[in-house]
Amino acid sequence: MTTQEVADQLVSLCREGKFSEAVNTLYAEDIVSVEAAAPPGGSRESKGLEAVKAKGDWWQANHEVHSSTVEGPLVAGSHFSTTFKMDVTFKPQERRFQMEEIAVYKVKDGKVVYEEFFYNV
Amino acid sequence: MTTQEVADQLVSLCREGKFSEAVNTLYAEDIVSVEAAAPPGGSRESKGLEAVKAKGDWWQANHEVHSSTVEGPLVAGSHFSTTFKMDVTFKPQERRFQMEEIAVYKVKDGKVVYEEFFYNV
Repeated sequence: MTTQEVADQLVSLCREGKFSEAVNTLYAEDIVSVEAAAPPGGSRESKGLEAVKAKGDWWQANHEVHSSTVEGPLVAGSHFSTTFKMDVTFKPQERRFQMEEIAVYKVKDGKVVYEEFFYNV
Repeated sequence: MTTQEVADQLVSLCREGKFSEAVNTLYAEDIVSVEAAAPPGGSRESKGLEAVKAKGDWWQANHEVHSSTVEGPLVAGSHFSTTFKMDVTFKPQERRFQMEEIAVYKVKDGKVVYEEFFYNV
């Protein structure tokens, strides 16, 4: 798949809330995922498909999504970017907040091999 | 200015080829600019307005731009992204090539304080 095709599929799945399916079908085994900030005691980087799936599973188990929008993709060469804007509740603290971020992805051999999220920390 | 306003102005100036004017009017004194790769003997990061202006001046002095397009912006919170697609000649080697990149920017107090470029190296 081209970068454009991967980008379109990723955006389409995320718009339907199918984040796990996006990871399972579009991400490479050696995916590297980078957050804007490290969690307490953790790293900004998650390396490998299992680590990225675990991060996603944690996120989905701990957040209730009230609404979300995905904009883009902008595609350039092997890279593309999107926005994610979500109204969510962090369930352990029953704390509702709005998050807005830019995501950048790199595609190699038809799979996402790198993602990085940009937001205020 | 809001992130959207800074983003719109930057895209507008870059579409007109006014890269220096974008830096001069929209960038903060403590701008950090990050390339996908370091130049020989150099760093991926340029810190401060003077260093970023010098990088831009070098680029403009050494490249002839045959055509260019700028897409976006996608705006999310304090960040925005664009694409740059250019057909250029690197004048010292008379080498013509096409470059495509995703750019991510962070805005604080109405100025660009961070930019990072994503392309294959």
